[in-house]
Amino acid sequence: MAKKKKGLIIVNTGKGKGKSTAAFGVVLRAWGRGLQICVIQFIKSEKGKWGEVKAAQKLGIDWLSTGDGFTWRSKDMDETIARAQYGWKMAQEKITSGKYDLVVLDEFTYLLDFEWLDVNEAISWLEENKPPMQHIIITGRNAPQELIGYADLVTEMKEIKHPYKEQEISAQPGIEF
Amino acid sequence: MAKKKKGLIIVNTGKGKGKSTAAFGVVLRAWGRGLQICVIQFIKSEKGKWGEVKAAQKLGIDWLSTGDGFTWRSKDMDETIARAQYGWKMAQEKITSGKYDLVVLDEFTYLLDFEWLDVNEAISWLEENKPPMQHIIITGRNAPQELIGYADLVTEMKEIKHPYKEQEISAQPGIEF
Repeated sequence: MAKKKKGLIIVNTGKGKGKSTAAFGVVLRAWGRGLQICVIQFIKSEKGKWGEVKAAQKLGIDWLSTGDGFTWRSKDMDETIARAQYGWKMAQEKITSGKYDLVVLDEFTYLLDFEWLDVNEAISWLEENKPPMQHIIITGRNAPQELIGYADLVTEMKEIKHPYKEQEISAQPGIEF
Repeated sequence: MAKKKKGLIIVNTGKGKGKSTAAFGVVLRAWGRGLQICVIQFIKSEKGKWGEVKAAQKLGIDWLSTGDGFTWRSKDMDETIARAQYGWKMAQEKITSGKYDLVVLDEFTYLLDFEWLDVNEAISWLEENKPPMQHIIITGRNAPQELIGYADLVTEMKEIKHPYKEQEISAQPGIEF
């Protein structure tokens, strides 16, 4: 049987580091090949502060940050949930725009895990609307089983050793953010 | 106690995907912040073919590929081992050159795992010679315990689901390479 090409659903999950950075590594690779890329960050808010956002601006990669920087610890849950749902609406527009070969939904699993968005609804929507050759990378902890079932490629990033817990080392600019 | 800053030794290991791409994501982030970066690929050979190499060329990131594309399956082990050792010599020069904030040793663990290079000698050399604020990212399967002990941050990439085994899907340019 001939091998087929298709747009992949890739999920990077687990408690370890590297979920988002592995997505950004694919962004770098895809950019190197001239693919059209859109990144939507669902939790992070402070646009322009992060190394990867600075890089994206320089490279002409579309990058949206729709979060308010909070999750379940938000003081205004209505606001946080509304932002998440707005982020998903933006993502749906980008996915169906026909402009992108690769769409990254960074920290999207939290919307599903906290049930701000129904996982089966999200999957049904993707099944019906995602362009067949478009790749989507979804990152975040606690990817629901339904999403794992739907995805083509799932990797768990597992923490073996972490310096900020075991040693008194602060997060390093350019490496951690 | 005040938190300290230091150059980190980061290891991405395990059988799953995302070890190298997470390193390349940090490269993108670091580049976004104007850090000086060198990537040395110990196994891959075909320079210019990969999406990430094309990207690095456009971004002015120093990128060396010292491998011949083979590992333990090489038909000429002397050549393969000599290339690996030459790669390590190049890495040592880059690390001590004073030019780089971040050095990526991609697929370096194989040199240690196959014992082409002694892990304790490599660690001793790094302890004595690595500039204190320089970050090093080492990728590859089967990171030796000595290296895990020496590293600040270690993540295992664990395969949960892989499309090329479970489905008849070919590797996709821009995503996989």
